[in-house]
Amino acid sequence: LTMAMKVGEYLFEKVRSHGVEHVFGIPGDYAIPLYRALEASGLRAVVNTHEPAAGFAADAYARLRGLGVVVVTFGAGALNMVNSIAQAYAEKSPVIVISGAPEILDRRIDALLHHKVKTFESQLNVYREITGAAVSLTDSSTASDQIDQIFETAMRTKRPGYIEVPRDLVGARMAAGGRSRSVVAEPDQEALREAFREVVRRLNSSRRPVVYAGVEIARFGLIDKTRRLVEKLNVPVVTSIEGKAVFPEDHANFSGIYMGRAGSESAREAVESSDCLLMLGAFLTDVSTGVFSARIDRSTLISASSDEVIIGHHRYSGVTLTELLNHLLSNRGLRRRKFVTPSGRGGPTGPVEGRLTTHGIVEELNSILVHGRHVVVSDVGDCLYAGIELRTDAFLGPGYYNSMGFGVPAAVAAQLALPKRRAIALVGDGGFRMTGMEVTTAKKLGLNPIIIVWDNSAYATLQAIGGKRDYFELNRWDFVAIAEALGGRGVRATTKKSFKAALRAAERSAEFFIIDAVIASTDISPTWRNISREVAARMEHS
Amino acid sequence: LTMAMKVGEYLFEKVRSHGVEHVFGIPGDYAIPLYRALEASGLRAVVNTHEPAAGFAADAYARLRGLGVVVVTFGAGALNMVNSIAQAYAEKSPVIVISGAPEILDRRIDALLHHKVKTFESQLNVYREITGAAVSLTDSSTASDQIDQIFETAMRTKRPGYIEVPRDLVGARMAAGGRSRSVVAEPDQEALREAFREVVRRLNSSRRPVVYAGVEIARFGLIDKTRRLVEKLNVPVVTSIEGKAVFPEDHANFSGIYMGRAGSESAREAVESSDCLLMLGAFLTDVSTGVFSARIDRSTLISASSDEVIIGHHRYSGVTLTELLNHLLSNRGLRRRKFVTPSGRGGPTGPVEGRLTTHGIVEELNSILVHGRHVVVSDVGDCLYAGIELRTDAFLGPGYYNSMGFGVPAAVAAQLALPKRRAIALVGDGGFRMTGMEVTTAKKLGLNPIIIVWDNSAYATLQAIGGKRDYFELNRWDFVAIAEALGGRGVRATTKKSFKAALRAAERSAEFFIIDAVIASTDISPTWRNISREVAARMEHS
Repeated sequence: LTMAMKVGEYLFEKVRSHGVEHVFGIPGDYAIPLYRALEASGLRAVVNTHEPAAGFAADAYARLRGLGVVVVTFGAGALNMVNSIAQAYAEKSPVIVISGAPEILDRRIDALLHHKVKTFESQLNVYREITGAAVSLTDSSTASDQIDQIFETAMRTKRPGYIEVPRDLVGARMAAGGRSRSVVAEPDQEALREAFREVVRRLNSSRRPVVYAGVEIARFGLIDKTRRLVEKLNVPVVTSIEGKAVFPEDHANFSGIYMGRAGSESAREAVESSDCLLMLGAFLTDVSTGVFSARIDRSTLISASSDEVIIGHHRYSGVTLTELLNHLLSNRGLRRRKFVTPSGRGGPTGPVEGRLTTHGIVEELNSILVHGRHVVVSDVGDCLYAGIELRTDAFLGPGYYNSMGFGVPAAVAAQLALPKRRAIALVGDGGFRMTGMEVTTAKKLGLNPIIIVWDNSAYATLQAIGGKRDYFELNRWDFVAIAEALGGRGVRATTKKSFKAALRAAERSAEFFIIDAVIASTDISPTWRNISREVAARMEHS
Repeated sequence: LTMAMKVGEYLFEKVRSHGVEHVFGIPGDYAIPLYRALEASGLRAVVNTHEPAAGFAADAYARLRGLGVVVVTFGAGALNMVNSIAQAYAEKSPVIVISGAPEILDRRIDALLHHKVKTFESQLNVYREITGAAVSLTDSSTASDQIDQIFETAMRTKRPGYIEVPRDLVGARMAAGGRSRSVVAEPDQEALREAFREVVRRLNSSRRPVVYAGVEIARFGLIDKTRRLVEKLNVPVVTSIEGKAVFPEDHANFSGIYMGRAGSESAREAVESSDCLLMLGAFLTDVSTGVFSARIDRSTLISASSDEVIIGHHRYSGVTLTELLNHLLSNRGLRRRKFVTPSGRGGPTGPVEGRLTTHGIVEELNSILVHGRHVVVSDVGDCLYAGIELRTDAFLGPGYYNSMGFGVPAAVAAQLALPKRRAIALVGDGGFRMTGMEVTTAKKLGLNPIIIVWDNSAYATLQAIGGKRDYFELNRWDFVAIAEALGGRGVRATTKKSFKAALRAAERSAEFFIIDAVIASTDISPTWRNISREVAARMEHS
């Protein structure tokens, strides 16, 4: 099959075979042959406004569809996406970056071709630092193996991969017999059995087992299995800021989002009083631990990830989350517990009088969110920390790496990835400056995401740490006029009542819709208030 | 002196000592102590909309003031500026990147701190690929030496430098006696003499010597000396697209911008018929050679740069441009030539009837540009290739690395760097999408750059190579409404007459002013027409 194919054909056939329909990016002269091959493959090229936005869009698509792909040009293209791909690496989102590159034949050592930095390898070296596997194709006879390996690593580890294709290689025919051999190590069966036995023993002998469901559950397609395991054990389950909505938040066993002293009290109570915490696919970061205010006794911990299972202070390398989940689901000896629903969650919507507040935005959003119909995408800023109170079954936000600029491009991509859902982006006025103009891509594609700008004329999360300073202040933008300048609609809301009305108008709109939600720069969610206090204290002590 | 100073104080004192008044960037939590130290130093913090824009602004400031500085946070900040700093590297612009970083005390090997990619060294490794010197400070006792070395290397090589400062080191006191020793190699006097003798001999024995003035002339402050040398030799002088305006374009000896078959005919005639081409601080790139259509006989070449002097096929390492220029200016044995002004330059402004064209924009701009009063800043796209026809004494444009997005942020920085001049930005509608919202920074600072958007609803330079394709098309933006939404002014011009009127209104405006210059997507400058033909031919053959 691969015998008669050209490198570019093979590459995009591979992309299609993973169920990808939309490829993000921006063309450039080194990428023109790649775009031609992409077009010929039947994939849809989505051209973004700026490479950072293209990277975020591909990342969001990957989180929702299992793989995201972005095609850019050499240098000015690929190097302008380093931060977005670094975020995908840190948060385990499988994005394949395909970069055009100068012709191999032109690469004399001292040739100065545009978009080149130090050497022709500089860009590859940079991508090695931010991907799980990176290659610059140089030979059509090995290209299919190399492409296969990048995809295989990305799918297995959920880390980004990088494929650089010189302009004179896209149309080159591949050699015959280019069948790739899988070289993934087989798991050690004895280690598996020993690990499983120890996990079951610990679970069964514990008094208060608790499940901590992390973000890898979504990455590895384990949402359903995790729910079944929780129902089988009938224990409390908490999630994390990165892993919000990997477990249904309206489920009886759901006990909140754990963030140490910064997050939900019921989650903290469950986690910190547990004598057997089963962490599934979670990373403990400074954010998810509430700046290290988490109090987790490591000796009581079972942590299963895509790489390994850690129990107490020892680890079983190569025993993975998926294997452990499968084992526990089929194990007939697991004890089932009695579970008491924790109190204090939810509550009715408050009054609509008075100025708009952070809390009011969350309340009103909760009154319209419908499972299966919306996907919430948050940028970084207080919208993310306040947004963890939203009751939704689909939530994306860079809760660990924390790059601003994710919200709007990711919302556009989310609506492409899940066409039956309406995307709702939460974004600060600082984040909107970075990539908010990406709403133009929604317009071009006929999509109608709702963009809620948390407009407080400040980098308010920084101001909460560092005090009122000129360099945390943002001058005002007329977001409604911007929406209209790009062919969408917009409404400014300064009261809870007008915000409620704006949300109704947004729901009816066939165009993208920006709600300029004006709030005070000192109106900060309790979660960020807690985090900022911890950070400020650390800074004063250092 | 350094004895009692804190690391942050020393760092920004060093910045001030280089004549820098404005520091660009975006704060983030890892950078808060740096911003406090910056504020205390009396420097002005200019907060940009997005890190790519901050990098471009610092680059422009460096090109005009000799050094640019940008302060950002770890990860999401610094890694979002890789492309901008790569461009500064490629085009030799001395930008110092100062990045905040996590506390040294928190850097346990497996700690997951936000904004971290693979390891705490990932970011430093990335910056090593795109700077001339990079360091992560870890010890207050060596910090002053390390800081000094980064500045010294940046000033000597005009390449960017990188300094990473952990949050707990900004306030640390430095050790006593931190005087740094310069370790720059002394030039070899015998090599100097031999090189100078050979250059003088070649110049004097040639029939048609020509000077090719490159961009390093501006970087190393040699504009005046170069003019004096040309007047002493009385020979034709050409410049390059990167080095536009390093030699006064209204000077009798100026013969145009050389770009092989793609550029000025008079320049090509001068260069390709010369038997002694004296290249001063130039790099020959694919762009500046008109995609390798330049025909320069290497045996006739003398090329002096900041690194070395190349004569024919041999090189004198360590003999620099500055030394050679000084020697030639003081040498009394140089032959003076008779010089005949080349014909065919300039010409009167054409009629104002009819639709606006690329040529019309250039004509009208030429009718208002005044030496000493304007600085023209071009983004990448046909505005750059058409813009080389502008008669100006101050022109910035990324003529080699060619990253889009430079224009608007660089124009804001240019007006800060040269407060007596009005900045005029040339930017395509594609480039404006990337960083155009940076006009908000002009508004905040009370600056009034004129932004001319070459609005052709396409990546028109790519379309000229790759044909009419959906992925080269851009949906329309209402740039006038955008200008007004951000507190500036704007006018749409579709005819030459309305463009002329818009320019007059822009000149009177105290606010930033966007002219939406609507042109056909097929209206391409002759220079790009020539380049695109060469590129398309190379692509078909590969």
